[in-house]
Order: sequence, then structure tokens, then C-alpha cells
Amino acid sequence: MKKAIVLCSGGVDSSTALAIAKAEGYELYALSFDYGQRHILEIEKAKEVANCFGVKDHRIMKVDLRQIGGSALTSDIQVPKDRSEDQISQGIPVTYVPARNTIFLSFALAWAEVIGAEAIFIGVNVLDYSGYPDCRPEYIHAFERLAHLGTKAGVEKKLHLEIMTPLIQMTKAQIIREGQKLGVPFHLTHSCYDPTSERKGCGRCDSCILRKKGFEEAGLKDPIPYAS
Amino acid sequence: MKKAIVLCSGGVDSSTALAIAKAEGYELYALSFDYGQRHILEIEKAKEVANCFGVKDHRIMKVDLRQIGGSALTSDIQVPKDRSEDQISQGIPVTYVPARNTIFLSFALAWAEVIGAEAIFIGVNVLDYSGYPDCRPEYIHAFERLAHLGTKAGVEKKLHLEIMTPLIQMTKAQIIREGQKLGVPFHLTHSCYDPTSERKGCGRCDSCILRKKGFEEAGLKDPIPYAS
Repeated sequence: MKKAIVLCSGGVDSSTALAIAKAEGYELYALSFDYGQRHILEIEKAKEVANCFGVKDHRIMKVDLRQIGGSALTSDIQVPKDRSEDQISQGIPVTYVPARNTIFLSFALAWAEVIGAEAIFIGVNVLDYSGYPDCRPEYIHAFERLAHLGTKAGVEKKLHLEIMTPLIQMTKAQIIREGQKLGVPFHLTHSCYDPTSERKGCGRCDSCILRKKGFEEAGLKDPIPYAS
Repeated sequence: MKKAIVLCSGGVDSSTALAIAKAEGYELYALSFDYGQRHILEIEKAKEVANCFGVKDHRIMKVDLRQIGGSALTSDIQVPKDRSEDQISQGIPVTYVPARNTIFLSFALAWAEVIGAEAIFIGVNVLDYSGYPDCRPEYIHAFERLAHLGTKAGVEKKLHLEIMTPLIQMTKAQIIREGQKLGVPFHLTHSCYDPTSERKGCGRCDSCILRKKGFEEAGLKDPIPYAS
């Protein structure tokens, strides 16, 4: 059975990527990161979602990106709230975490080499967040090239690894519809960058705003609770 | 003052790379990894060497590559001993750690972006260990390309980052001579993959063998103790 590593953050996108990998017949290996993120709650949610899809294994890597900082998610920089769609789509937000996808994909690559996985699924998309540089197709292709050059399996021509980005050209609404079709348990997902102490979405950060808009456009009710 | 991140493992190569970065006038930011390696002693040695060169900062990132395994350095696979030079130079050894340099460089990239470093120094070389895929120039170039595509600073054309590999075409003896010239405290360095409980080099793993041969060819006495 062909194996896939799926980067799982417990959010709508990665949960849908997981569902797609399952639908495509892969044996699933989920990989999540406890990286010092403000919204550490997402790890717990990622576990619940991964369980729902019967993953073969789920690893939680601990890497302290607070030691590096430079992002609202890993330092005391405030998470922006109540931004308009125009503001959200302009430039790279302070929630960008330096080199995060490169770090995540590196670990996924290591694990892929060890277990002989043929695919790494990552739920990046360029449409809603045009600002994140490490969500673009050219970046993903560059990483794929690196993967083949930088591994034993690659050099020995035994690495048949593709970085799979099934959501890369989809809007949030399209992703939600696809997830709905594939049985993603949206009630278990978590998207907020700055959840309340009662574990609700703040409803005001970029991530909450894009999620709420996505559900609205998809004509579906978002099943999670928000503080506002 | 221009800044450089230097990947420091406490060995001969990375310590010489550190000395070269200093000689080239960079302000030094040392980065080491506690990754579950068998020879964790190297972290302590890296600290001592970094101190000698007056680094501005030294971060030790903890990442548990034992969770991933696949190498004699991060699992119970035995470290090969008493191999001939021919054996050492043939193929990729079991001490290869899957995607290690990709993981290390990813963190260095994140830190470089945050502090605005212009260079990441890595003490890779292809001559003695032709087997490690992530020590080759084509790999390094691919990473450099990725760095520019995958970062905010890269996209905004504010990343002027080079991956510096001053040792890449040098033999171990040449590296040692260069290090000697630049005042590398070789008595503080550590190379062994499988040190004894008395903190001596085993003298028999590939890394010890290449180190001893290097000192011999350089006509210098290796100042560290060996068990054999």
C-alpha cells in the first residue's frame, strides 16, 4: 500500500488534505508540530481529526520556534484583528512564521525517506493567502527538487516522492465543499490564531475571518464556537 | 556589521568554518542541534568552541530525530567500526541521518531571516565523505534557491543570503591546516560518533578514522584522547 505523510495542523485545509490523501488510497502518516505556537490547541485537534481518518501513525514533533521568533504566532507580537479582506490579502502578514513550511517539510522528508513514503501532502493554498511565500507552487517545486538532491534515497533513485498540494489553487469555500464531500469532521477542526481561554475561536483574526467567509460562501454552517 | 549564522557541531569542520566566518569579518551566530544524536557530547564541545570565537549568540535547538530514526546516530543501528578507507568512501554509510542538513539549514534560514543574516556557514565537504548527498554543491545551490523562494525576506528582495561552504572542496588535512592557521582550538573539538563513557573518541568509527588520518596528513598531532 502506498504511503503518504500528511502535515496536519488541525485546521480546515490540512484536514481536507488528509481526507483527499485517504480518498486517493494512501496509508496515512500524520505529522504535526508543537512549535511554540500561540494556538497550541491545534495539536489536540489535529490528533482528533487524524484519529477520525484512521491514520497508521501520528507523530508530534516538538521544535521550539519561540527561540527564533519573528512572528505573531511565536512571539509577543500581537495577532492582527478585524482586518478587512483587502487588508488580509495585501502583503505578508505578521503571522508569517519564518521558514516554517521549509522546517515542516524537512522533517516530513526525513520521515518519508525512513518509511519509504511516496507522497507528502501539505494543505497550502495561494488564493486566500497570496502573501505566504512558502505556499506558492514555485516554492513547492523547489522543495521537491531539493528532496531528491539531498537524500540517500534520492541519490540512489529510490525516492519516488512527490509533494502533493491538492488545495493549492482552491478558495477556502472550495476547500470546505471538498472537505464536506469527503467527510472531514469540521466540528473537530481549529483555525484561530488566538483562541480564548474557553477554547473558542476569537472570530477576529485573519484565520477566523477567512474561515467564516469560506463557510458562508460554501453555504454551510461553521460548527465551531466563536467568541465573537 | 554583517552577520553570519554558523552551523556548529563541535567537530573539526564546523569549527574551522566558524573560524573562517570570523576571519571574513562576520558577526557570529552559532547554531547547534540537540537532535537525539548518540554523541550528544558534541553540543558541549560546540559551546566551548563557540565561546572561544566570541560568538554574539549561540542557540541550541532541540529536535528529536530519534522519533524518525533511520540512522546509526539516532537509533540502535550500530556505528560501523574499523572500516578501511575504501569501505568508508563507498556508498552512503548508515551514519547518514535522513534529511539532516535540510532540517538544520531550515532552522538556520528561519533565524537568518529574523536577524537579517547575510550568510549561513556550513562545514560540509565532498572529498572525504563523497557519500553524503546533502554535502554536495548541487544540493547547497538548491537550498539557496529554496531560501529565496520560501521566505518573506526573499520575496520582498530583502534576503541577501548565501549558503557558504568554504570547506566543500577541501580534504580533511587541508581543513585541519586551515583551522590551525586560524586558531581553531582542536583540543576542544569532538568528532567521534560513538564516544566512550570517559568521553574519549572510540578511534574506530569512520569519523575518528578520517580525523586521525587528516591530522596525520597535515603533519599535526591530534590533541584529543582516543580509547584506541
